[in-house]
Amino acid sequence: MNKRITVLSGDYIGPEIVEQGILALEAAARRFGHRFEFCRVDFGGAAIDSAGVPFPEETRKACEEADAVLLGSVGGPKWDSVPKEIRPEKGLLQMRSALGLFGNLRPAKLHPQLAFACPLRPEIVEKGIDIMTVRELTGGIYFGSHETSVQNGERVAADLMAYSEHEIDRILRVGFEAARKRRKRLTSVEKSNVLDCSRLWKERAHALSAEYPDVELIDMLVDNAAMQLVRDPSQFDVLVTENMFGDILSDESSMIVGSIGMMPSASLRDDSFGVYEPIHGSAPDIAGRDLANPIGTILSAAMMLRYSFGMAREADAVEAAVDAVLDSGLRTADIMSAGMKRAGCREMGAAIAAA
Amino acid sequence: MNKRITVLSGDYIGPEIVEQGILALEAAARRFGHRFEFCRVDFGGAAIDSAGVPFPEETRKACEEADAVLLGSVGGPKWDSVPKEIRPEKGLLQMRSALGLFGNLRPAKLHPQLAFACPLRPEIVEKGIDIMTVRELTGGIYFGSHETSVQNGERVAADLMAYSEHEIDRILRVGFEAARKRRKRLTSVEKSNVLDCSRLWKERAHALSAEYPDVELIDMLVDNAAMQLVRDPSQFDVLVTENMFGDILSDESSMIVGSIGMMPSASLRDDSFGVYEPIHGSAPDIAGRDLANPIGTILSAAMMLRYSFGMAREADAVEAAVDAVLDSGLRTADIMSAGMKRAGCREMGAAIAAA
Ligand SMILES: CC(C)[C@H](C(=O)O)[C@@H](O)C(=O)O
Ligand SMILES: CC(C)[C@H](C(=O)O)[C@@H](O)C(=O)O
Repeated sequence: MNKRITVLSGDYIGPEIVEQGILALEAAARRFGHRFEFCRVDFGGAAIDSAGVPFPEETRKACEEADAVLLGSVGGPKWDSVPKEIRPEKGLLQMRSALGLFGNLRPAKLHPQLAFACPLRPEIVEKGIDIMTVRELTGGIYFGSHETSVQNGERVAADLMAYSEHEIDRILRVGFEAARKRRKRLTSVEKSNVLDCSRLWKERAHALSAEYPDVELIDMLVDNAAMQLVRDPSQFDVLVTENMFGDILSDESSMIVGSIGMMPSASLRDDSFGVYEPIHGSAPDIAGRDLANPIGTILSAAMMLRYSFGMAREADAVEAAVDAVLDSGLRTADIMSAGMKRAGCREMGAAIAAA
Repeated sequence: MNKRITVLSGDYIGPEIVEQGILALEAAARRFGHRFEFCRVDFGGAAIDSAGVPFPEETRKACEEADAVLLGSVGGPKWDSVPKEIRPEKGLLQMRSALGLFGNLRPAKLHPQLAFACPLRPEIVEKGIDIMTVRELTGGIYFGSHETSVQNGERVAADLMAYSEHEIDRILRVGFEAARKRRKRLTSVEKSNVLDCSRLWKERAHALSAEYPDVELIDMLVDNAAMQLVRDPSQFDVLVTENMFGDILSDESSMIVGSIGMMPSASLRDDSFGVYEPIHGSAPDIAGRDLANPIGTILSAAMMLRYSFGMAREADAVEAAVDAVLDSGLRTADIMSAGMKRAGCREMGAAIAAA
């Protein structure tokens, strides 16, 4: 197959990790006889520097014309003082919205080779951690009106969280479908004892659940979910939730598996198009020093193969290569431990591509 | 001193644990020569049953006439199907708002005797966990407008998060003051890369920080805070945040110390009045069986002595009694471990009162 991939390297370590993601995709293409064409465009801070805004029209076009997008990481101190309307993160939000990427998948799976890095006790870790967070990505308080006004002589800030039934239904379906392909447990996380959005969410979850009799639906309040993730993460299979709760809980989940540098993500819509990126940030402190862990990006590339290109064998091969290289003892600095062999970003990427 | 304490036992295990809190207060009164008068009124589910609403006018009056309120726990399956306007949790929110309890203090401190129950690795736990979460309790998305309307033929739910400068300032000051009395680190948690409320919050935190030069102010995004609490909780001293984030993060913090049955809380306003309650729920499954852990309530009573009555010695004595009884090996079911002596709620409460 021929596929066009738009590459948004982004800022600081972005270009370094993205190159290793590309290497992995090229290796998969060679091995399985595909042709991937890569087109690099500016995004985030890099785009602010070159075009004055974080998500320029040209970048948007390049994304829309591609079959999928590989994204590095955006933002950093260089753009700390730009006005809020054009901050690098704003570009990320604009992209999610403009491209209609409502479904964010964030798997948090323990790599047994790295169990030592998990902050939880071994007895808890041994029960297994393999959580897929399905986060709504284009609605809720992220995209409601934001305004700061003056009332009675003082400023009042207001942010609106809003959800329509169809927005809720389509992300819940992503959750049900994901659970159906996995261990068939869907935990729907909300705050229905306080929020109208959550009450509608819970009601829709139960309504849709009739169409997925094979999937067990569990309601959980967000405060309880934040606790349960620490107490016993093995109880979770797929966790589906709205934008803000998903931001918080997916970061918490990625930390409980101990190696945020390894965590991929996919941002999807109803067709096969998607944006794939590691969940970690741009790590200004280690940028340009060949120290970054490229595995989060490489596993994001594997998700691209699986979800956007329907290439399950190819995705399995990339994931197996990551496992094999970890088994061989190669480690970037962030996941280093005694007796292992230290590698830079490039060496790690090359080893995975070779495998 | 003479003090009037209104007691809201609440539902399920509520009455059992509250009786042990009262015993501890009476023991402190005897030992230090005070007189505490207790007045019991219905609240939550119990009030729905007796008066049709969870926070009746009479209960409100009894709270307002008291020097402090001791609260058990509210809600449970019995009231699952009552209309949302009169659910037990609604009574809690009405009480917080009606009594103006904007400052919620939730200490999460590791009891060394229970370190085994902490879900984090010993290396992390050894660095110490002693976090005071200061949560805003009468504003934000909990108290903004909530409405569900029909738009273009489908329902749309909307919840408004709003904060005024004075609401932000007064809770930040509670945070700064608490940090000043502790290890002088204040972590201000927000989502300023997305929310106007959080941008105003961050700006006010830095403005007020000039008045507290002895306190180090650290900005942290809420997603990162959810991770850092698991990765290295020893970095936190006082954590100050808005209502919803505080709900999530304080529950996460209480879980990382491993024994939610032990965690107290105080809900305060500008004067000395306060409502004191354990952070755990009403535990319908163990209600009426003398199995509940009364320590969260007893430590809440200690917070009452300290914050509402200015009785530091008395509070220290109650906390020391809890420690002594834990040292003696007595354990309720939820914190039981090999070699310890199992006790019921009453036996545990009596032992602490005696100590
Ligand atoms: C950068 C920020 C706006 C973003 C978010 O909150 O969605 C990030 O935290 C993420 O999770 O992708
Ligand atoms: C019962 C519920 C409304 C309440 C809250 O969210 O504030 C509870 O979770 C708490 O933290 O006291």
